[in-house]
Order: sequence, then structure tokens, then C-alpha cells
Amino acid sequence: MDEIKVFRDPVYGYISVESEIIWDLVNTREFQRLRKIHQLGGVAYVFHTANHTRFDHSLGTYHIASRLVKEIEGLKELLEERGVTLFLVTSLLHDIGHGSFSHAFEEAFDINHENYTIKVILGDTEVNKVLRKHDPNLPQDVASIIAKEGRFPLLESLISSQLDSDRLDYLVRDTYFTGATYGHIDTDRIIRIMRVIDHSVVYKASGIHAIEDYLMSRFHMYWQVYFHPVGRSFEVMLNKLYLRIKELYNEGFVFSGLVLKLIDFMNNPDAISKYLILNDYLIMSMVDELAEKNIDDILYHLANRISGRRLFKYVINNDVEHIYAQFEQELKNKGYNPNYYLHVDNVKQIVYNNKYSIEKADSIRILTENGEIVPIHEYSEIVKSLVYAAGKSEIRLFYDKELVDPSKEGN
Amino acid sequence: MDEIKVFRDPVYGYISVESEIIWDLVNTREFQRLRKIHQLGGVAYVFHTANHTRFDHSLGTYHIASRLVKEIEGLKELLEERGVTLFLVTSLLHDIGHGSFSHAFEEAFDINHENYTIKVILGDTEVNKVLRKHDPNLPQDVASIIAKEGRFPLLESLISSQLDSDRLDYLVRDTYFTGATYGHIDTDRIIRIMRVIDHSVVYKASGIHAIEDYLMSRFHMYWQVYFHPVGRSFEVMLNKLYLRIKELYNEGFVFSGLVLKLIDFMNNPDAISKYLILNDYLIMSMVDELAEKNIDDILYHLANRISGRRLFKYVINNDVEHIYAQFEQELKNKGYNPNYYLHVDNVKQIVYNNKYSIEKADSIRILTENGEIVPIHEYSEIVKSLVYAAGKSEIRLFYDKELVDPSKEGN
Amino acid sequence: MDEIKVFRDPVYGYISVESEIIWDLVNTREFQRLRKIHQLGGVAYVFHTANHTRFDHSLGTYHIASRLVKEIEGLKELLEERGVTLFLVTSLLHDIGHGSFSHAFEEAFDINHENYTIKVILGDTEVNKVLRKHDPNLPQDVASIIAKEGRFPLLESLISSQLDSDRLDYLVRDTYFTGATYGHIDTDRIIRIMRVIDHSVVYKASGIHAIEDYLMSRFHMYWQVYFHPVGRSFEVMLNKLYLRIKELYNEGFVFSGLVLKLIDFMNNPDAISKYLILNDYLIMSMVDELAEKNIDDILYHLANRISGRRLFKYVINNDVEHIYAQFEQELKNKGYNPNYYLHVDNVKQIVYNNKYSIEKADSIRILTENGEIVPIHEYSEIVKSLVYAAGKSEIRLFYDKELVDPSKEGN
Amino acid sequence: MDEIKVFRDPVYGYISVESEIIWDLVNTREFQRLRKIHQLGGVAYVFHTANHTRFDHSLGTYHIASRLVKEIEGLKELLEERGVTLFLVTSLLHDIGHGSFSHAFEEAFDINHENYTIKVILGDTEVNKVLRKHDPNLPQDVASIIAKEGRFPLLESLISSQLDSDRLDYLVRDTYFTGATYGHIDTDRIIRIMRVIDHSVVYKASGIHAIEDYLMSRFHMYWQVYFHPVGRSFEVMLNKLYLRIKELYNEGFVFSGLVLKLIDFMNNPDAISKYLILNDYLIMSMVDELAEKNIDDILYHLANRISGRRLFKYVINNDVEHIYAQFEQELKNKGYNPNYYLHVDNVKQIVYNNKYSIEKADSIRILTENGEIVPIHEYSEIVKSLVYAAGKSEIRLFYDKELVDPSKEGN
Repeated sequence: MDEIKVFRDPVYGYISVESEIIWDLVNTREFQRLRKIHQLGGVAYVFHTANHTRFDHSLGTYHIASRLVKEIEGLKELLEERGVTLFLVTSLLHDIGHGSFSHAFEEAFDINHENYTIKVILGDTEVNKVLRKHDPNLPQDVASIIAKEGRFPLLESLISSQLDSDRLDYLVRDTYFTGATYGHIDTDRIIRIMRVIDHSVVYKASGIHAIEDYLMSRFHMYWQVYFHPVGRSFEVMLNKLYLRIKELYNEGFVFSGLVLKLIDFMNNPDAISKYLILNDYLIMSMVDELAEKNIDDILYHLANRISGRRLFKYVINNDVEHIYAQFEQELKNKGYNPNYYLHVDNVKQIVYNNKYSIEKADSIRILTENGEIVPIHEYSEIVKSLVYAAGKSEIRLFYDKELVDPSKEGN
Repeated sequence: MDEIKVFRDPVYGYISVESEIIWDLVNTREFQRLRKIHQLGGVAYVFHTANHTRFDHSLGTYHIASRLVKEIEGLKELLEERGVTLFLVTSLLHDIGHGSFSHAFEEAFDINHENYTIKVILGDTEVNKVLRKHDPNLPQDVASIIAKEGRFPLLESLISSQLDSDRLDYLVRDTYFTGATYGHIDTDRIIRIMRVIDHSVVYKASGIHAIEDYLMSRFHMYWQVYFHPVGRSFEVMLNKLYLRIKELYNEGFVFSGLVLKLIDFMNNPDAISKYLILNDYLIMSMVDELAEKNIDDILYHLANRISGRRLFKYVINNDVEHIYAQFEQELKNKGYNPNYYLHVDNVKQIVYNNKYSIEKADSIRILTENGEIVPIHEYSEIVKSLVYAAGKSEIRLFYDKELVDPSKEGN
Repeated sequence: MDEIKVFRDPVYGYISVESEIIWDLVNTREFQRLRKIHQLGGVAYVFHTANHTRFDHSLGTYHIASRLVKEIEGLKELLEERGVTLFLVTSLLHDIGHGSFSHAFEEAFDINHENYTIKVILGDTEVNKVLRKHDPNLPQDVASIIAKEGRFPLLESLISSQLDSDRLDYLVRDTYFTGATYGHIDTDRIIRIMRVIDHSVVYKASGIHAIEDYLMSRFHMYWQVYFHPVGRSFEVMLNKLYLRIKELYNEGFVFSGLVLKLIDFMNNPDAISKYLILNDYLIMSMVDELAEKNIDDILYHLANRISGRRLFKYVINNDVEHIYAQFEQELKNKGYNPNYYLHVDNVKQIVYNNKYSIEKADSIRILTENGEIVPIHEYSEIVKSLVYAAGKSEIRLFYDKELVDPSKEGN
Repeated sequence: MDEIKVFRDPVYGYISVESEIIWDLVNTREFQRLRKIHQLGGVAYVFHTANHTRFDHSLGTYHIASRLVKEIEGLKELLEERGVTLFLVTSLLHDIGHGSFSHAFEEAFDINHENYTIKVILGDTEVNKVLRKHDPNLPQDVASIIAKEGRFPLLESLISSQLDSDRLDYLVRDTYFTGATYGHIDTDRIIRIMRVIDHSVVYKASGIHAIEDYLMSRFHMYWQVYFHPVGRSFEVMLNKLYLRIKELYNEGFVFSGLVLKLIDFMNNPDAISKYLILNDYLIMSMVDELAEKNIDDILYHLANRISGRRLFKYVINNDVEHIYAQFEQELKNKGYNPNYYLHVDNVKQIVYNNKYSIEKADSIRILTENGEIVPIHEYSEIVKSLVYAAGKSEIRLFYDKELVDPSKEGN
């Protein structure tokens, strides 16, 4: 490129783009679409400033990747020019197929956004054109890393493992935009202790605390932000709305308006173009439209509640089974279908998963002072204590408080 | 209220809501709509993280107002309970009628969002109901402050003047979310030197530098953020799109799809419900829809470019008149209507407006060590120097580089 | 007071002083002396910006205390005016008898700075005069809290327990001034979940993560900052220098210059005035003076090394006993006294001490959703996992690398 | 070097040292001495957290210099290896001869710290040895840049001009450690627009606002921090104390204790070793010692007041001449020497000095869009307005309020 392009970014100061392929990818229609996919979906309904997008996060992941290339000793030489390009490009594109409010959507329509990421990379898209123009084999290779086929194990672990360019960006970014204080991690130190040995990433033991701190931060971000019941409530309701649309669709109901875009997708879930149309802006506009005119009681009720942020209440843990049965009966007695107004959600997160072992590419492995490589839970007393026991799970019952009158209020 | 409610906010830590009326207003449909109105419109197309909303800013303005009540000596006693409520409520609602991408919209449809704010407060809305429930005269009084009728001069100056709860929030918030560094102001100090004398706000001279710094920060934020030509380019294009819709509408063109919501509004611009439907999500979905199918060449061209962020290029100052004439001819020769592809924008901002004088309620007035009250430009050497001379203006020519081939490139 | 006084503080923005007794205490000679006692002693020799002082921290502890009074529901009423004064005053004065580089000093001279804090409060000092002027019983009561006599159990736990005004200030402050990233804690949230039940502090379970995060932050700050071997090395060397002075003193050596201030103290360790003279500035000037002229080989050697920051090297864990024996022999062979050039340091810190139980005032107790009060390690899976197992200990051997030539280098 | 060394720094995250000469210079006795010279002298008596040192700032200036080398297009190639070393070394050492509380000291003893910087570089010092070991001509060349002899015009302007590595560090650092909010500058942007043309630095016009903002920040930092009357009061008192010592010395008074170090220096002001002994720790310990025992009434009085932070009060501007005369008479009537208890201070600072012109190396020069180079005050409307008029001056009268009873109180 003639000139380095920069993006101002409050998390990093500036993000520089130094190669033409990155610049061209950013300017594709598919990448620009990420501006309309919020990073945290329904979380904005509890952390009101969490309006940052997959566009921001994708640029940030690219930025972290470019720091790793510059700062991990020997990585640049090891990857060679093509490997560097593969790394940067895949970091930038890792969420290119991310959908709108994906929790609600993927569950309702039984899809997986990674598959769409691969479709965008391999299909008839501007992204694919840019990749092919640069190197005809690039799309296949980028897709292979996303799919974790094992052809590029080092890049796979740098982009998607227990500790990778993706997570290094989002923990800090989500902290910045939510105002939660738990995601502060010592990125500089983590990068400084990264080494590549035998084509895989290890961390020098001298900075073990930075990794311990990272694992705890991640754990706390899950509970404080990603699993927050109010954000989940929003996604539960959206999921119920989708289920109702599906049901009506299966019954041959004739829709009009924006919901037709969703019907288009349902008719042809493999068409990448139909899928990509469904961004957060369109989905929320569809909800608003469904809230305007009653074409179906259930849809109208749910859409109105979502549109005005009148979210389901919830109870946690206490006697969920019993309350569920009671609410179910109450709803039936009043003539409501409990499937649309009650939902049980199991949430579980542990600090560090002991299934990861030294053989697995995505375990966190420590390079000790003696030059040995051991899994972190054998090295750190903290992680060892946590890995076998600590975690947290919750059972949550979401319910429509306008329709049932709980004995015990949730939030 | 039984319990204080809090919002986590990265700018302030927490925003507390201590009175029921505020809580009820936040939960109205009209206030929740502000989640879909971005604070800075097209600016997000240049500062990609600028996705914060009028919802965030309105809460923040309320927060600043509640700090002023607590921290300005004697203010609480002076305002009495009702005055405090008026102040907090009006701060919260001051942007309730804000439209989508208002630069583009207000110019195209010749409206003014303050009028819609007043309509929301006085009309058949949930906001109006909450206000009336609390006090039947509240809607009128809140509207009076918004309209600056002069009935509540102190509150008017606290909410909307050279230095007010609105500006104290947005400079800092816009800085936080854009990553621009110019909006750092010393809010704590500014509040500490505020005094109320004879029902109007003055600033103790001991903190004059905090005000000087504020004026420069504001000036720089205008040029770096609010007037950034790339953000303006986005709004110029949207404005052109609106103009084309208007023209087609006047010609009796039959539209379908989302653009009908805009037609609804054009048919009945006084109906608050038609106006409130038009949020950023809907407008951008409409643009995407217009970019899908060609119903009109001009619309299709513009919508496609906006949707894919292929913005008009620009030249600044240099010989704008001459280039304009040249581009205009070129477009005509090629069969394009220059009205849609060329735009001249005059931007002007001065550091401090010398039209403000000691008599005007919205001048910044300094309380000197001797107890005199003088306008800031008579007290501060810095402001004096700037007020008569300094400012900056730019003439910018925006043009569609796909259609004209400029001799000199802009950005 | 006529006017609220404020201190600008980068950690809190402003610290306000609203009562005359606090203002008068700050202006005593003994409190001003804290400007010359660094908060972190030798840590500044590894984190070069850690030059903040006990003065800063004492003001900060007072600030946190005044927040607790305002923000913990019902605390102000419970404490009544005198209790509030006691709380604020004791928070401000809790380190008033802190010595210079206390690790090195207290070990060498077998003293305890809490005792000197009590002496300053009860003795012939400006602090005592200010306290007595306000209330003749105040000195005794403040001293009682410092001594944890149990007369004011709630205040004792608010000022000195597992989680108190002291720790809430220093973790954040030390983070700010060192640049370590591990001390970020969610102070706002922690304060929001504090309740006082039966005259003792409990924490609402809804914010358990903020406490978990605090415990991990504290743990990491110990290892990254407070126990950093380079900072310890500095204090070890200073300790050796003190030991040599003591030895010479016991042998009747005739000193001159600044070291006489230390001799004065040794002659009369109970005289508070002799103790208070010994601040960091004087001690370091004494070291510089001892480094100028050789009055004793050992002193001269140690003083020179400290003065020029030529610190002892160290080895950690690996075979310390064996290396110690080897170095000891080597030093003896060369005619050096190993007592002055070798040191073994055991450092141990656990995340949360399981000796704390529900009966003990200083355990962290959780108020569950059901209104029960349980110790945190019974409520939190994280703390439970850590409390019985996790911690970390190190054995470090410090040695004078100029005199011994280790097979394995430390830092 | 085998390994990159890093310093944790809260302002920059990490400061890396990549070359052996820098590492060796940091470890000299003269550089380590800078730990005992506070960056802002008496300012810590008003901004209590301003305890950062010349050591911190010197490392920071080196860090900025190393960024400039890496980030200014073509600079590295232009300077070549030796020029880069010269730049980094001189940035690191530019304050190596800085004295203790230099305002007070330099005025009393009529010296200039730049001269001592040159002496340290050229004299019999560890610094000189390290420089010579690397390159026999290095000391001369470093000294030449410090002395601004014109042999290395580009390096002179990069290290000491209107906008240089020194200022880029200290504005931000002083802001961080005082908590003042005025020193936020957009370092990243400023560096991004720097270019070197014909061996001199210019700034691209596209970032003119970053420079305008820098000038205003600098101006405000002067008034808010560097010129704060309370900090000046401390230095005025120290100056009076020095003057009294000088007077007694000239009268043949026989001193003992720490003040002898100062006498040593007075006896031999050219001996660099005598000068370097005089750090802040020693000077303040000397003041404490003079406050312990009355060897001279004036000294005893001043030392006691400084030691206990009982600073001179002040009046600003109002009728200073008249009050001076009145106080002078009052002091004389009471038998006090007014020279020691009264002081008039003229302080003046302008935003941008119009004496700088395009010919002068240290003007700020703008590279316009057309490739012309013009002085900033011809390009920027803001600077133009300020340069001819704006600035601020104050006349302050400091006085000992214990001895005179002013009609009008200062602070």
C-alpha cells in the first residue's frame, strides 16, 4: 500500500492497516455488514452502553494478531510471509458469518455461525473475491483454520484456543464498552511471555500470574456480562418469537413486511445472501413492525414486550422445578401456551477446563524455568485448585410476569 | 422508591436513579426508542466505535443534573423539590424527540427535533402519562424549558446554554466512545466553581482555566469529530437519498416496503407516532432494502453506496467553485443529475461566540475575586483573544468519485 | 468549617475534607512527616514510579471511610456523630506511626509500627493535642481501635480486617502508581453490597464476584508487587546494614554524622520523637553518607551498593539449601562474614485464609438471598476451592554477586 | 544485549531498553541519583501525589525518543546508527545534572543546571565512562546537543524545542501523577504527523488541531501546576533559607551537621561531586535538622515552617506594591528582616511565543497540503489569535502570616 491506513480505537489508540488485502477486506460489503451486528447481542439491554459491534471486535482481533506477529520472538520468521497473511486475514474474518443475536437465532433455527463464516469465505462474496485475487488458495486455507481441520495447528491455536487473538481482544473490549471492571487483563505481559516451541504456543512461567489473572477475568466476565440474566431474558424472548414464527410458517401462515426476510432465509437456509441480510437492525425493525399490528396474539404480545424492553422476569436456582410446574398450570388455566412464556436455562462456566491436557492444542502450556513444558493446572497452585472443583452453575426460570403472578419476584 | 436503581456506565461508574418518576420515564416506550438513535449519526462511519446512543447520553445528562443538584451550593434549596424534579426530568427528556441521523433528515424534511421533543412531552405518549400522573402541570413546564420560553430561566441555563448538563455529558461521552482525546474536560472542577447568584449560574474566577479548557475542548471536538468530513459525507448521501424519495413521492411514485414508513411520515409529519417509528435501525434497513432491488436508478445507486459504505469523496477549500462547475458539467455530460452527486457544505465553528453578553442568559459569566460578575471574554485573556478572531471555517465539496474523476483527490 | 477543603487525587478525582478535626490532623507535624515515608519502601527499586507515600494512602483511607459512611445503608445513623468521627479519624491516622522501610527496620530493631502509631496518638504530639481539643477521650478510643481491643468491633472491622478502608485504598493506589494491572477492583460494587447487621459488616451475595475478584487481585498484588524479589533485595540489604550498625554500636563504636540519629533511637527506642525523625529521606541520606567515607568495611560495602542500587541477586526455590552452604563456604574462604552477604527469605501468601470463620470479626461474611449469613468460603465455589489448597510460597536466597560467583544466576 | 530489559511504567505500559549503552547509563550512580530528585519540586506540597522523579521522566523521555526513531518516516535512515544512539542517549541524560528544588536553588546560588548536566557528561563520572567506552567522541557530542551549539540541529530540535521528546513526556507524566486533567495530549497523533524535511521537523497540517491542543495543554499546565502559588511558596521559603545560610556563611558562621554539605558545595561550586550530593532527600533532611535546634533565629523559624509545611501565604495582583510597603513596615516595626519574610514573584506565560519564526529551529512549522512550510501562527487561526495577545501574568506577594497580619487573606 502507498500509505498506512489507521483506525482510531479507544481500546488501542490506533489500529494500523499496512497491507492492501486487509484494507480491501475491510471495505467489502460483508465486512461492513458487521457494523450492524452487536458484539454482545442482548447484553445491551442490561449494560446500556454495550453497543459495540463485531466490526470493532474483528478489527481488534486483527490488531492483536498483528501485535503477536511483531512481538512474539521468531514468530514472523516461522510463519513466513504467507503464514503472516493467513494469520492476519483469518483473525480479521473469524466472525464474518456472525449472525444477529446469535444465541436466540442459532437455537431457534438450528444453525451455527461458524458454518456461515466458512460460506462467506468460500462462497460468491466480495470477501472471497478479494482473497482469491491475492492468492487462489487463500479462501480454502482461511476456511480450514476456521474449521480447525488441523492443517495449520499453530495458527488455529493463535486464533482459537484457550487464549488467543480473539479472546485477547474481546475481554478488554467488552470491559471497555460495558463498564464492567472484571476484564482488565495484562495483555502486554501475556504477549511478552508467549513463545512458540515446536509449532505450538507456550507461556513462560515467569508470567504465570498474568495467565491466572486472565482465567479469573474470563470467568468473571462470563458471570457478570455474558450470562447476565437480563441479557439472557432478552434473547429468550427473541427465541420464543422466532419459534412462533416458525410454527406459523409451518402452519402455512401468510406473512407480510419485514418478517418475509426471515421467511426467505427459512426457505433457503443455505443461501448466504439470505442469511447475511438478517442483521440486528433488520431484526429489531421486524420486531417493531410485529408490535405495531396484531397478526397473531402470541407474536403481538412478544414483539410488544421486546420492543418496549418489558423483559421476562426470572428466578434463580430456588426450587425451579416446583415453580415451573406451578406457573405452567397457571398459564394453562388462563389459556396461554406455556412454551412461549416460560423458559428454563442452565448456565455453567468453570474457570479452567480440566479436559484440556498437554496433548491438546488448546490447553495452556507453561514453559518452566527448567525448559519443561507442562499444562498450567500442573504448574499453578491456583489453577490446580480451581480446575478440579471450581465453577459455577445456575438454573434460571424465565417467565412472563404479566401473565403469571409469582410468589417470589426475580429482578 | 423502595430501592435505588443503578445503571452501570463506563463514563461515570454508576448512574443512580432514586426517584420513581425517573425510573418510570426510562421505562417508557419513547425513552427505550432512544436505544436505536445513535448519538453521533454518521460519525460512526469514521470513528467505528462511536455506536453510543441518545439513550446513553440522556441518562448521562440526567446524571450530571443530579450531581449539580447535590454539589452546587444552595441549588437544592433554591429549586425546592418541584424544581429539582423539573430539572432532572427535563435533563432526562431533552432529546426524547431526537430523530434518526438528524442532520440528513432535518434538512431534507425541514423539521426540527426540538419540536418533536415537545410533542412527545405534550402528546399522547407514555412519557406524557408518567409526567401527568406525577403532576398535571409537569408536561407543560418541561416543554416550556425545552422551548426556552423564559419561565424557568435558571433551569433553561442549566440544561441548555454555553455550558450545561447536556454538554458536560456529551463532550466526555463522545470522547470515550470515539477514542478522540480532545474532549477531556475537568468536570469536577467546573462543578466545584459553579454558583447560583440571582437565579443564574456564574463561575468562580479561581477556576477560569477549567472553562478555558472546556471551550477549547468543545472547539476541537467539533472539528475532529462532529464536523469530520467522512461522517458528513455519510449524512450528505443520506440527505440526497431522502431528496430523491421526496421527489419521487411528489411525482406520485408508488413505493413498497420499508420506505412506506417514511412516506407515512411525509403524509402526516405532525403525527408523533409516525415520526417516532423512524429510528436508525429502520432507516438503515430501508437503505439496505433500496439497495437490493432497482426501483429507481438514482435511489438504487445511492442506497448501494451508503449500504456498502462507499462514501462520497471530498475536496476542501481549494478552489471549490471551479471544481464544482467542472464536476457539474462532467455529470451533465454523462447524463447524471448533479443535484444527487455533488454537494457543497459550509462548516464554521468559533471557540466562543462574542454575541453572548452579560445580559444574555446563556453567556458564561465569571464571578471575580471582588464579587463582580463579568462575561468570560472580558475576564480571560485567552477567551478575549479568541472571541473576536478565532474560529475556523471550511468549504467542502462532496462528490461521487465513481461518476466524476477529479483532478485532485480528497481523502 | 467555613469551607470544604479538597485535595486533588488522581485515584479519586478529589478528596474532600469537611470537618475541622480532619483538617487540623492533616496539618500536624506528625501527619506531614508521612510525606517522607514511601508507601511501598523498596518496591520503588523495581517499580520505579512507586514513589507514592503514606501521606497519600492515609488521605485515601480517610476518603474511603467517608464514602462508607455516606454509602452503606444505615451506617451513619448507627455510628452516630461520634462514631463517624472516630471512624474517619482512625482511618486517617492508622499509619501515623509507620516507619521508614519498615520491613528492614522492624526486623532489625524488633519493633512494631502499630505500637508507635498508638504512641503518636497518646503521646506528647500535635496529633494528640488536636484529638484532645476535640474530645478528651478521643485519643484513648482511637488507640483502642488501632490496638483492636474489641471495644469498637464494627469500627475495627471497617478499618482493619480482610476487606477494609485501608485495603480498599491501597490495592487501587498501588496499582495506579506502580503500573501493575492486577489491583483493579470494583470498589463501587463492593461498597454497594456492604450491609451492617448486628454491628458487623456483611456482603450481599448478589455481588459475590466482586469479592472473589478482590481476593484474587490482592493475591496477585502480593506476588507481583509487595513480594517482588528486587524490592525485597533492597530491604534485605538495608536490614544487613542496620544489623552491622547494631553490632558496631554494641561493640562501642564511635559514630558521627547522620547515623547518630539512628543511635539516638537505639538509645531510647521508647521516645516517640527519636523514632519519628527516622524517615526515608534521612535513612537514604545516611546510607549515602556511609557510602562516602569508609569507617567500616562492611558498612562501606553495603552502603555503596544500596546507594548505587547494586542489589543482591537471588535464586528462587531451586536447591536453596545446597547453594547457601556453597556460598557460605566461599564467603568464609574469602574472609567475608556470610551473615552480611547471604540471606534466606521465606515468602508465603494464600488467596484466602481458612482460619477465618464465621465467629471471627475479620472473616468475610456473605448475606445470602435467604437472609442467612455464611462465611465466604462456604458460599463461593471459587473461594472454597482456593481456601483449602491454593496459595504459593517461595524460598529465596539473596546473595552478594560481587563476592560470590554463583553457578546459576538469579535475576 | 542478550535480552531486552523492560521497565513497567504506568504512563506507557512498558519502557523497553534494547541497547547496552542505555542499560549501562541507567545503572550509573549519577542516573540512579535522579530517583532522589523530584520532577516537580515544591509542587508536591500542593498536589500531594506529585512524587514522581527525574529518574521516571528521563526514562520516559528516552522512551518517546525511541518511538520517534521508529515512527517518524525516514528518521532512522537519516540519523544512521550513530545519530540514533546520540538521540537516545541525550534524551536519557538531558536532566542528569538537575538539582534539588532547582527554582529555589538556582536562584540562590546563581547556577544553571544545564551546566551541571554538561559537567556530568564530560567530567569524571560513571556516565562519562560508559559513554567513552562506547565511543570516545560521544561525551563531546552529547554535551554539544545539550548546549545547543548547533552542530546537530535536528537532534537539538527533537530534544529541546517548542515540541520535543522532553515535553511530550513531561506534560503527560505530570498530568498522570498530579491528577490535573489539563495535560492530556494526543501523543500518537502528534507523532504520526511529524516529518523531517531538510534536516528539520515539520508537522503535517492535517493534524494541526493536535498541535493547537498541545499548546493549550502546556499553557494550562503552567498555570495549574508548575506556577501554582502554593508550590511556589514552598520554593520561595527554601530560597530564603538558602539566602540566610549564604549570609551567615559570608559572615563566617561555623555550621555543623548536614548543612555542611551545602557549605562544601558553596566552597567549590565547580566540583561536580559536591553538587551531586545535594538531592531532595538530603536537602529536606537538612531542613529538618535546622528545625530541631536553634542555631540562628531566622534559620530556625524558616526551617520549622518548611519542615511542618506552614507555608507563606500570598496575595495576587491586588495592589501588591501597597501591601508590600505596609507589610515591610510592619515587619521592621516588629524587628524582623523583611528580606526573609516577604517576596514578590512575577509569573508570566504565553500560549505561543511570537518571537519564534520560520528561520528559528525551535518554531513549530507546519507542512501544508500544498507542500509549503509555514510557521504555525500563520497557519492556525487559533494560534494566530493567541500569539499576539494572549497570555497571562501574575504578580504575587508571599508573606509570613505568622509575622504580619494582612488585611486581606490570600489562600
